[in-house]
Amino acid sequence: MSDGIARRMEDIKPFQVMALLARARELEAQGRSIVHLEIGEPDFNTPQPIVEAGIAALRAGQVHYTPAVGLAALREAIANWYSKGAGITVSPERIIVTPGASGALLLAMAVLLNPGEAVLMADPGYPCNRYFARLLEGKTIGIPVTEASDYQLSSNHMDSYWTPETRVALVASPANPTGTLLSQAGLAALIKSVESRKGTLIVDEIYHGLVYEGRAATALGLSDHVLVINSFSKYFGMTGWRLGWLVVPNNFIEAAEKLAQNLFLAASTPAQYAALAAFKPETLEILEARRVEFQQRRDFLLPGLRSLGFYVPVTPQGAFYIYANCSRFSTDSFAFAQELLEKTGVAVTPGIDFGCNAPQQHLRFAYTTSTEQLQEGLKRLQAYLN
Amino acid sequence: MSDGIARRMEDIKPFQVMALLARARELEAQGRSIVHLEIGEPDFNTPQPIVEAGIAALRAGQVHYTPAVGLAALREAIANWYSKGAGITVSPERIIVTPGASGALLLAMAVLLNPGEAVLMADPGYPCNRYFARLLEGKTIGIPVTEASDYQLSSNHMDSYWTPETRVALVASPANPTGTLLSQAGLAALIKSVESRKGTLIVDEIYHGLVYEGRAATALGLSDHVLVINSFSKYFGMTGWRLGWLVVPNNFIEAAEKLAQNLFLAASTPAQYAALAAFKPETLEILEARRVEFQQRRDFLLPGLRSLGFYVPVTPQGAFYIYANCSRFSTDSFAFAQELLEKTGVAVTPGIDFGCNAPQQHLRFAYTTSTEQLQEGLKRLQAYLN
Repeated sequence: MSDGIARRMEDIKPFQVMALLARARELEAQGRSIVHLEIGEPDFNTPQPIVEAGIAALRAGQVHYTPAVGLAALREAIANWYSKGAGITVSPERIIVTPGASGALLLAMAVLLNPGEAVLMADPGYPCNRYFARLLEGKTIGIPVTEASDYQLSSNHMDSYWTPETRVALVASPANPTGTLLSQAGLAALIKSVESRKGTLIVDEIYHGLVYEGRAATALGLSDHVLVINSFSKYFGMTGWRLGWLVVPNNFIEAAEKLAQNLFLAASTPAQYAALAAFKPETLEILEARRVEFQQRRDFLLPGLRSLGFYVPVTPQGAFYIYANCSRFSTDSFAFAQELLEKTGVAVTPGIDFGCNAPQQHLRFAYTTSTEQLQEGLKRLQAYLN
Repeated sequence: MSDGIARRMEDIKPFQVMALLARARELEAQGRSIVHLEIGEPDFNTPQPIVEAGIAALRAGQVHYTPAVGLAALREAIANWYSKGAGITVSPERIIVTPGASGALLLAMAVLLNPGEAVLMADPGYPCNRYFARLLEGKTIGIPVTEASDYQLSSNHMDSYWTPETRVALVASPANPTGTLLSQAGLAALIKSVESRKGTLIVDEIYHGLVYEGRAATALGLSDHVLVINSFSKYFGMTGWRLGWLVVPNNFIEAAEKLAQNLFLAASTPAQYAALAAFKPETLEILEARRVEFQQRRDFLLPGLRSLGFYVPVTPQGAFYIYANCSRFSTDSFAFAQELLEKTGVAVTPGIDFGCNAPQQHLRFAYTTSTEQLQEGLKRLQAYLN
């Protein structure tokens, strides 16, 4: 290219919500009160036992590189967590600690995907997923999902969309932006369908723990051949620490390890020591209280939005998002989000960040703020929309 | 592939030194005393003012995501550092804070390199560089460098090795594993040569600050079109925190920012707040004392190795490495390194990790340990080799 920028950069898009966020900050700086329903991270701080463990690590001089795959103690703690929480045995050797789930996604895609090969994923979905594939010169086939499948991929989708060049399918449960879960039966059928095609399933479980009805079962209990991505960001409240993990099948351990060495050297050392406290009973108690709080927020916001006229056909069971059809109010959700911000001071994320499946008819509401703020947001929306 | 692993993984190699390091740890566990000259990170802890700033940030709840390109205050602090230290004006907008220099390398390569395009780099060189190119389906042309060019690339190399498919040249000054510098004139000639070919130069400056004769001039003073990689790891003693930065030309800001959003979300928040203290006078005083200590170690180890019969034709002026020709003792440096470890308890890195240019004749000695340990190491080598 004449400007010297690699071609992939034409296809990689910035987060559109950033412009809205910047405008929201600008309005706040001018003294306007803004209700933030656009932010995809918990408003809670990191639980104090984790913070204290991080501080203790810094005081103890734990500031040097760890092994590329992470501290042995942390990999064991994660394995124990699977054992205690889900009754599943995962060898610590299969667990690779990464710089956030972002690092885990890069590793997973890079060990699996050849140039020209395709990844199937749900549309709407987490925006970055498709750009990891693009980075590696792979392709993404975004499958438009609807309420009929709870916005999740199903084995039927595999029948319809799998091509000879498809190598990977990627699902997230609970999902961003819809908050919906894959049922255990649905997940099992999907695994069977993908594996029968000699493909590999990547399962994004970063919102595990933040589930309000039933329990999200880890894909690790259903197959030894899936790659599972998880994170200390969302459930454990450690977003800014940038720490996640990847579980790989036995035959991928060597590839994933050498890739981690070369791409990352290692994940953050203080974060890893801090995360050792994430599985302590006193931390889990804090996290459970937060989970209950998130559920209360959902139970407040969801009926509120529905009664205003937003259409949410599937009750979101996890994460902290409600993906709402706003076509009763607008056929251009981006302009509508701008309008809501300017007129009501309520900030939300327009559908455009999540794919090409009717984004202009959808808004994502994140309940990552207090019930009081949610109440204020609903009040403002009601006053404006009715 | 039948095993389901992407083809690129055949070409991406693990660090060979890891096997030696594991064996060294095993011997230590058995009670053997090991002199570690294989480790590529400072033995010093993070300076206390930086640690304290990190702790204060944790106490203040600075645990949420920062902007993708980093904290505004940190980008300004880095810009001020260029201004005060080198008298160079770099707009903070051009500075992108990354998860280590590793993150900066990934961004730099990804915004520049199309599949099939080539990166020129010195051989020997930092092992990961070529794998970032491979990840992106680019090619690496390793240029065998010798003492004739201080193991650095020169504009003559560009005349000989630049091909129609070459897009990027990458240099490091001071370099790993040779510790040599590019002169200001050499760097200027290289930039001119690369830019006249409509290519882009990436300059790895992560060992800036650790220079023992003269001063390494940043490439930012010579061109507005280079991409410069730097890090808080080596000079600032923050390896395990995983924090670096990338300076891009104006026309790359947008591409680098959206890529950082999608690949990383952001660098570690506690690390960024900690790094704000990296430029304080009390920190710089500590760092200067360490620089002097490193110089003393080099001035001790280098003549010692030479007098034992290791051939080091160019005096390393920076970083903390000595790349020594060991062909007087062995024509298989990997086996020789194993032998030295087993027989003398001295751990060094064999040349194989740094490329294909006579690796079997070279060892890298890192002076990342005390002068007492260096003394002990030399004593053991002398007793064994003579």
